[in-house]
Amino acid sequence: MELISQNKVFDGWHKQYQHPSEVLSCPMRFAIYLPPNAAQGERVPVLYWLSGLTCSDENFMQKAGAQRIAAQLGIAIVAPDTSPRGDDVADEDRYDLGKGAGFYVNATQAPWSTHYRMYDYIVQELPALIEANFPVSASKAISGHSMGGHGALTIALKNPGMFSSVSAFSPICNPLHCPWGQTAFSAYLGNDRELWKQHDASELMKIAHGEQTVALVDQGEADTFLAEQLKPEALQAAAQQSQYPLTLRMHSGYDHSYYFIASFIEEHLHFHAERLFA
Amino acid sequence: MELISQNKVFDGWHKQYQHPSEVLSCPMRFAIYLPPNAAQGERVPVLYWLSGLTCSDENFMQKAGAQRIAAQLGIAIVAPDTSPRGDDVADEDRYDLGKGAGFYVNATQAPWSTHYRMYDYIVQELPALIEANFPVSASKAISGHSMGGHGALTIALKNPGMFSSVSAFSPICNPLHCPWGQTAFSAYLGNDRELWKQHDASELMKIAHGEQTVALVDQGEADTFLAEQLKPEALQAAAQQSQYPLTLRMHSGYDHSYYFIASFIEEHLHFHAERLFA
Repeated sequence: MELISQNKVFDGWHKQYQHPSEVLSCPMRFAIYLPPNAAQGERVPVLYWLSGLTCSDENFMQKAGAQRIAAQLGIAIVAPDTSPRGDDVADEDRYDLGKGAGFYVNATQAPWSTHYRMYDYIVQELPALIEANFPVSASKAISGHSMGGHGALTIALKNPGMFSSVSAFSPICNPLHCPWGQTAFSAYLGNDRELWKQHDASELMKIAHGEQTVALVDQGEADTFLAEQLKPEALQAAAQQSQYPLTLRMHSGYDHSYYFIASFIEEHLHFHAERLFA
Repeated sequence: MELISQNKVFDGWHKQYQHPSEVLSCPMRFAIYLPPNAAQGERVPVLYWLSGLTCSDENFMQKAGAQRIAAQLGIAIVAPDTSPRGDDVADEDRYDLGKGAGFYVNATQAPWSTHYRMYDYIVQELPALIEANFPVSASKAISGHSMGGHGALTIALKNPGMFSSVSAFSPICNPLHCPWGQTAFSAYLGNDRELWKQHDASELMKIAHGEQTVALVDQGEADTFLAEQLKPEALQAAAQQSQYPLTLRMHSGYDHSYYFIASFIEEHLHFHAERLFA
């Protein structure tokens, strides 16, 4: 694991690392924010943040303004990249498939299946790496934006008990029924719709009758992707079906940008802190 | 004036505009953040933010996290671009001269003198445009980073009474004696060192015996540009000479990035608010 950069932020440290990923068969970069108390020997809980299409480990760390609250609360934040990277990694000349668009699934189809295993990377390899190398506890929460909101919700739903809470901004709630989801799933997963359902937050929430991870979702009403791509109404309907502890909040005037995330990230961090420190 | 984009942020609005600049003889873009109370008919004071080398109107708005506090305090923020722009604007293939590096002076030398008049743009054209088109009062403060910290300090020092307060992060305090300043001033202003002194914060502060604009400067001790380019010790010495109301704070571990600005912008906004609302 190689330290790429570090910056002091709100008395804690933002650090970028590169490491060889076994799961993805390529070098991967991630960012971690360590709050001030982590430097004083305390083991702090971790919020994993999954970013959206075209993003890297940098967008959230630079634009969300989360470090201020993470420093106050004593929470580490880990922001991985959004796909495998490198010259030998399959790609398409479009923003919603290939590099920057891993969709947090394990691809089963060539040429994607060689490297595109973001599900296993986020669920297994990355947390193990973080817990082995940083002063963090095993307490975890997960959040994300857009494609990363889809990632956070589906990963939490598929792994009950792993995260004490899950939240999302503007998530892709029902990829089975939107262009982004259909493009990515048909490429990465092929034509088996039963496999698609295992990575669709609305489908998963509908049948989530066992241990349920409490969920908070914020969605801007002026988001240009809302009707065609995001479909929070499908998630809401799924939650009603399984009596899932989902809070969905619609926000007048807000769009799909990081300005929206910055406006409400403090509430998400407090939401997670309540469970992480319970 | 043309609206380029708008985003709701902390219940206020971030907007980007393009307008034809008479002073700079080119179209210019700026960003404005209007706090929630500005939409309710209140005339709010304005903080002008001047950015550093390579920046546009976007860096501060995306990375500093200032809107949260501006919304609470009821302060508008205006972030101009850092130079004239366009295909017919003189440029050099380097980051510290030409586009993105206007240095907030009026160039006297060809080929720069045609467009590079950022001093007049910031002091005259932009505030007039803002006050004619937005619900703002005449109360103004000014701040900036690096080259923009130089801009904020020199503009406040040359225009006593115009701003109720001035602050800077990591400013170029003594451009007469650093490579960035010498490169820019010799290109834009020629070899007349007396003219250079009129745009050097330390030289101006040394002789600022009349009306003095209270100043706050924050500087990171891990800033890689500190010793060679920034020279806050020259500003401190100048303040002692003229009994200038300067507070210079050195911060252990912080670097030149927006992570440093984000960590202390709240204190700067409160510093300005105390005078803007006095």
